[in-house]
Amino acid sequence: MPKTLEFFFDLVSPYSYLASTQLDALAERTGARVLWRPFLLGAVFKATENVSPATIPAKGLYLLKDFGDWSRHYGLPALQLPEIFPFNSLLLQRLALVADEQGRLPVFGHRMYRAIYQENRDVTSAEEVTALLAEEGMDAKAYLARAEAAEIKDRLKANVEEAVRRGAFGAPTFFIGEEMFVGNDRLMFVEKALRAP
Amino acid sequence: MPKTLEFFFDLVSPYSYLASTQLDALAERTGARVLWRPFLLGAVFKATENVSPATIPAKGLYLLKDFGDWSRHYGLPALQLPEIFPFNSLLLQRLALVADEQGRLPVFGHRMYRAIYQENRDVTSAEEVTALLAEEGMDAKAYLARAEAAEIKDRLKANVEEAVRRGAFGAPTFFIGEEMFVGNDRLMFVEKALRAP
Repeated sequence: MPKTLEFFFDLVSPYSYLASTQLDALAERTGARVLWRPFLLGAVFKATENVSPATIPAKGLYLLKDFGDWSRHYGLPALQLPEIFPFNSLLLQRLALVADEQGRLPVFGHRMYRAIYQENRDVTSAEEVTALLAEEGMDAKAYLARAEAAEIKDRLKANVEEAVRRGAFGAPTFFIGEEMFVGNDRLMFVEKALRAP
Repeated sequence: MPKTLEFFFDLVSPYSYLASTQLDALAERTGARVLWRPFLLGAVFKATENVSPATIPAKGLYLLKDFGDWSRHYGLPALQLPEIFPFNSLLLQRLALVADEQGRLPVFGHRMYRAIYQENRDVTSAEEVTALLAEEGMDAKAYLARAEAAEIKDRLKANVEEAVRRGAFGAPTFFIGEEMFVGNDRLMFVEKALRAP
């Protein structure tokens, strides 16, 4: 039976972006089904008393180099960080859940990640988000309206709570059943687990 | 010309242990010279306002699983954490510098790492340290006396200051020239850099 890989991500997380670029090929190689699970990294940090690594200046500097190392490793364009970083990803993560209702979450996720980390587009601007949704044939007005629904807001909160309950403390967080793997740099262990009998 | 890989390590760091198990083979494959550089992780944390990842409970739990994943990945025995962890590694790191004066630092480092993370030996006990040094034909009495010399104490402090000045914030930290790589999980980038023309 094909395994399911849950991918808890936040669009504000560069390491989640890096991991996201590998998921389609990983699914192809292993036959696994990838389930994109939007959550809010800031809320996970708050719940676990964790903090962004970038709060330590020396670590923040190294992260920038490391993003470059991973981008080259994966054959991606140089990773660009938004001018304002970290940015507020709340609306985007809600929109991700709307896309999920439409069965279009991976398309949404890939498009937004590319916009943020490859194309330097300002996804905190409603005009940019509208343009990006339209590019993918998504009804921006309907998406933005639905993103304000209590059901969507509650689903995002529930995803945060679920991830924290299952052990998450950062992003990206992967689950295969209840086995957890944390970080883009653990994808080789994820792949090994997906291939295990 | 063969490149030099500097390996800043602390015996209290399990990820430095994991990395240390790969260094001899890495040197063989790449022709690089590995320079073991003892420092004090606690002092690096203090200087950079970084903290041990284990201070976040959810992260601490994951680390234990992750140590197992890496041990299996490297074909090592299951990593055992000392009962008291983190332990005070100050004397051990000074002894590492004494071993360095004798040209025996890698032997010392490998022996102590094995004792701590594979054999569950209490390296905070003077008797155990004496026994371990003796096993490697090192004069324990002379080593322990020399470890108290001002020169050794100053060298350890200088190593911390140098590492922090060059950008370190955790362990293990690698340098190839001034290019820094942080973590056992970046050894594939270290190897790539060592192989680059």
